[in-house]
Amino acid sequence: MAQEKKLVEAITSMSEDFAQWYTDVVVKADLIAYSSVKGCMIIKPDGYAIWENIQHELDRRFKETGVQNVYMPMFIPESLLQVEKDHVEGFAPEVAWVTHGGLNPLQERLCVRPTSETLFCDFYKDIIHSHRDLPKVYNQWCSVVRWEKETRPFLRSREFLWQEGHTAHATAEESEARTIQMLNLYADFCEEVLAMPVVRGQKTEKEKFAGAEATYTIEALMHDGKALQSGTSHNFGTNFSKPFGIQYTDKNNQLQYVHQTSWGMTTRLIGAIIMVHGDDSGLVLPPRIAPTQVVVIPIQQKKEGVLEKAAEVCGRLGKTMRSKLDDSDKSPGWKFSEAEMRGIPVRVELGPKDIEAGKCVLVRRDTREKIECPLDQVEAKVAELLETIQHDMYERAKAHRDSHIWDAHNYAEFTEIANNKPGFIRAMWCGDIECENKIKEDLAVTSRCMPFNDQEQISDVCACCGKPAKKLVYWGKAY
Amino acid sequence: MAQEKKLVEAITSMSEDFAQWYTDVVVKADLIAYSSVKGCMIIKPDGYAIWENIQHELDRRFKETGVQNVYMPMFIPESLLQVEKDHVEGFAPEVAWVTHGGLNPLQERLCVRPTSETLFCDFYKDIIHSHRDLPKVYNQWCSVVRWEKETRPFLRSREFLWQEGHTAHATAEESEARTIQMLNLYADFCEEVLAMPVVRGQKTEKEKFAGAEATYTIEALMHDGKALQSGTSHNFGTNFSKPFGIQYTDKNNQLQYVHQTSWGMTTRLIGAIIMVHGDDSGLVLPPRIAPTQVVVIPIQQKKEGVLEKAAEVCGRLGKTMRSKLDDSDKSPGWKFSEAEMRGIPVRVELGPKDIEAGKCVLVRRDTREKIECPLDQVEAKVAELLETIQHDMYERAKAHRDSHIWDAHNYAEFTEIANNKPGFIRAMWCGDIECENKIKEDLAVTSRCMPFNDQEQISDVCACCGKPAKKLVYWGKAY
Repeated sequence: MAQEKKLVEAITSMSEDFAQWYTDVVVKADLIAYSSVKGCMIIKPDGYAIWENIQHELDRRFKETGVQNVYMPMFIPESLLQVEKDHVEGFAPEVAWVTHGGLNPLQERLCVRPTSETLFCDFYKDIIHSHRDLPKVYNQWCSVVRWEKETRPFLRSREFLWQEGHTAHATAEESEARTIQMLNLYADFCEEVLAMPVVRGQKTEKEKFAGAEATYTIEALMHDGKALQSGTSHNFGTNFSKPFGIQYTDKNNQLQYVHQTSWGMTTRLIGAIIMVHGDDSGLVLPPRIAPTQVVVIPIQQKKEGVLEKAAEVCGRLGKTMRSKLDDSDKSPGWKFSEAEMRGIPVRVELGPKDIEAGKCVLVRRDTREKIECPLDQVEAKVAELLETIQHDMYERAKAHRDSHIWDAHNYAEFTEIANNKPGFIRAMWCGDIECENKIKEDLAVTSRCMPFNDQEQISDVCACCGKPAKKLVYWGKAY
Repeated sequence: MAQEKKLVEAITSMSEDFAQWYTDVVVKADLIAYSSVKGCMIIKPDGYAIWENIQHELDRRFKETGVQNVYMPMFIPESLLQVEKDHVEGFAPEVAWVTHGGLNPLQERLCVRPTSETLFCDFYKDIIHSHRDLPKVYNQWCSVVRWEKETRPFLRSREFLWQEGHTAHATAEESEARTIQMLNLYADFCEEVLAMPVVRGQKTEKEKFAGAEATYTIEALMHDGKALQSGTSHNFGTNFSKPFGIQYTDKNNQLQYVHQTSWGMTTRLIGAIIMVHGDDSGLVLPPRIAPTQVVVIPIQQKKEGVLEKAAEVCGRLGKTMRSKLDDSDKSPGWKFSEAEMRGIPVRVELGPKDIEAGKCVLVRRDTREKIECPLDQVEAKVAELLETIQHDMYERAKAHRDSHIWDAHNYAEFTEIANNKPGFIRAMWCGDIECENKIKEDLAVTSRCMPFNDQEQISDVCACCGKPAKKLVYWGKAY
C-alpha cells in the first residue's frame, strides 16, 4: 500500500500545474531519464517502443508513396551550411560545432546536422543530370542537434530523433503536390494512429522554415489549450537548387533548376500524445501506438491455477495483439496503478472467482469502464474494445479541440480570449508582419497557420489593425 | 550497346585488383556515394535497404532474447569518457570533439560517441539499485564516429551505423553467458541470413576491446583471403561498474558490483557481403538479405501483351517475396547487366515466344544457370530457387573458406604461408604478446581469434618461438 501511494502521489494534477504534470508523467511512466549531457534525454524502453511504432507506421506509409530511405553524414562543413543565406541565418546560432578530430584541429569546422537540406543539395547536385533522374524522393531516420537554451523532454531537446524527407522534382507543380501530399500523410497519421485531430494549413512568412518558399504545418491542441506544431512540410521551389547549382536537362535539352521539398516529424510527437490524451493517473496511449495494448493482471495469483490461466489468456491475446502478463510479486492494486501510469489501453483482471465463473473483467484505461467478459470470448472482446477506444479517444480529443476554438473579430475580443480562454483563436489578418509582431508582443500569441479550408471568412477586416483582411489565421500560445 | 559496355567496363576484375574491384562495386551497384565530409559516406537507397533488412532480422532475434531498445545521447562529456582508464586510452585519440554550442564555447568539451559504454554506465548507476532491477538488457541503433585516418566505404569510415547492446547482470556467470549468447546469435545470423561462415572465438589480450575482461569475435574470410572481424561481444566483468560505482543490494542485503557486457554489429557487414559473395559482374546478394529477390525483365516489351504479362507475373511473385518489374526503356541486355551488378538473386526473362509457350526463363545470379519454368508454376519455382541459392551460396563460401585455412607448425611454415597463401593461418601460440608483435611486424599478420572449438591442437609448441604452446590461434591479414 505504501508503494502504491508513492506512485500516485508523485504526480502533480493537470489542473494544478500542467507543466509539472507533464514532467512527472514522462519520468514516472518511464519514458525518459535525464542524462549528464545538459538538454539531452535518454529515451527508455517504454518511450523508445512508442517511437518504434511511430517509425514503423510512418515508414510504411512513406514507402507506399515511393519514398526511399538513405543515410547522410551527421556532419556539415561550415562552408556548405553557408551556401543558402536564409538557411544559415536560421540555423547557425543553434548548432554544435566540431573543431577537433582526434588530437588535431580540423581545417574547417563541421556542424552536427540541425537538418540536412545542405547535405542533400550537395548530393543531388552530383546525381541529378537529366529529367530521367527525377524525381528523387529520399528520406532518412536519424538524430539532429539544435543547441536550445530552454529544453523539455520530447518537446524541445538539444538532440532529438526524427525523419527528414528531401525530394527533387522537375516542375514547381510536382514539388508543390509532394509537399501537400506529405502534409496530408502526416495529418492522416496523427488522426488515424495517434487519435489526435490536427488543423492543416500554411505558415505565414514570419513563421516559415529558413529557406522555404512555403511551409505547411499540422497544428494540434494540447489539453492545456496550447498549440503544438506536430509536423511540417516545406516547398523550397528553386531557393536551394539555384545557389547549389542543381540542374537537369529537360526533354528539350534545356538546363533547368530542380524544385525541392523537405518534410519532417520528430520524437516531439510523443510529447503530443502525452499532452492530448493523458490524465491525472498518467499516460493514456491510443491502442494503435501502444507498445502494450492489453495487460493481464492476475488476482490472488498464488492460488492454484490462477497464474496458469492468466498466462493462457495472455498467450491467446498475444496472437493478434501486443499483450503482456504482469506476474510480478507486486499487489494487484500496485499493478493497476502501474498499468494506468503507463497508459496501457486495456487491462484484464482475472481472479479465482472469475475463473470459476468462466469470466474476466476488462477495464478501459481511457474511461475506467469495467466490462465483464466470458473467458472464451476474450480475444474478440478485447480486439473490439481496442477499436472502440481508438475511436473514442479521437472523438474526445476532437470535441476538446473544437470546444477550444474561439473567434475574435477585433482586437478587444482577441485580447480577451488570449488572456482568458485557452485554445486556438480564429481571426482574420491583413497579411502584415507588423500585426503578427504586435500580437506576439502584446499577448504571447503566434500565428499557427492559415488553414487550407478557409472559405469561412469570419470578418472582412484584420482583427489587429482593422484594415482589409486577406487571410483567416489560427493563432495560439504554443510549445 | 554503348551503355551496356560502359556498365561492365567500369569494373576492375577481382583478380587484377581486389581493392579497386571492391570500390567499383560499392559505387556501380549504387550502394554509396562519397560526401563532401572526408571519410564519411552517403548510403544510397540500395545500400540502405540492405541495412534495413539486416536491422529487421537482427532486431527480431535480439527481442526474442529479451533485448529492449533505448536511445542515449550522441555526446559524451570529456570527464565521463575518462572514468575508465583503458577505455579512454583506446578511444580518445580517435574521437571528434564538440567545443562550441551555438555562438558560445562549451564549459566542457563533448565528444561525439565512438561507442557508448560510459553513457550506459552513467545511466545504469542511476537506475540500478536492487537485484530486482537486474538484468538490464538494452540496445540502441545509432551512428558512431571514429576519426580514422584511412577510410574505405562500409569497412572503415569516420561515421558508421551500428547497434550496440549494453547489459548489466548480478553475477559473473550471467554476464559471461550473455556475452556468449550474443556472439552465437551474431554467428547464426551471419551463417543463416548472410550465407557467410564465421569462426567463433576469443580475442587475445592484445586485440581485445579497450576496457574488456574478454572479447569474443566472429571472423569471416573474404574472397581475397583477408579476414574481416564481423561482430564482437565483450564481457567487462566489473571493469566499468567499479570506477562508475554501479552497485546493487543482493538478496542478503549486501552491496555488489554489477557485471556488464556490450556487443555490436555494424554497416561493415555490407562490406563483408560484397567481399564474400561478389564476382566480376558485381554484387551477389544472399536472397534472405536482398532488397529485391527477383526481377522480372520483359523481352520485346513493346509487343502487345508482354508488359501486361510481366506485370502480372511480378505481382504474383510479390505476394510472397520482394519482386520488381524492370519496365524502363533500356534494352534487355542492359537490364540483365544492371540486375547482375545489383546482385538480384533471380531474374525472370519473359518474351512474346515464352508467353505463347506458357513459360519463362529463370536465371540464377550466383551460377548464371538458366532454368525453363512453366508460367503457372513461377511462384513455387522461384521460391524454391531462392532457398537453393541461399543454401548454395553458404556452401560455396564455406568451401572457399575451408580451402583457405593453412596449418603452420613452425615459423618457416608460418612465413611461407603468410607470404604466399591467402587465408587463415592456424598455428599454436605460447600466449606471449612478444610473439604476437613479432608476427605482426614481420608478416603483417594479426591474431584473429582463439577458436572455441580448439580441441584440435596441431602441435605442442608455439609456431613463433618454439616454447610450449597454450592456445590454438587463427591468424590472418585483416581489413
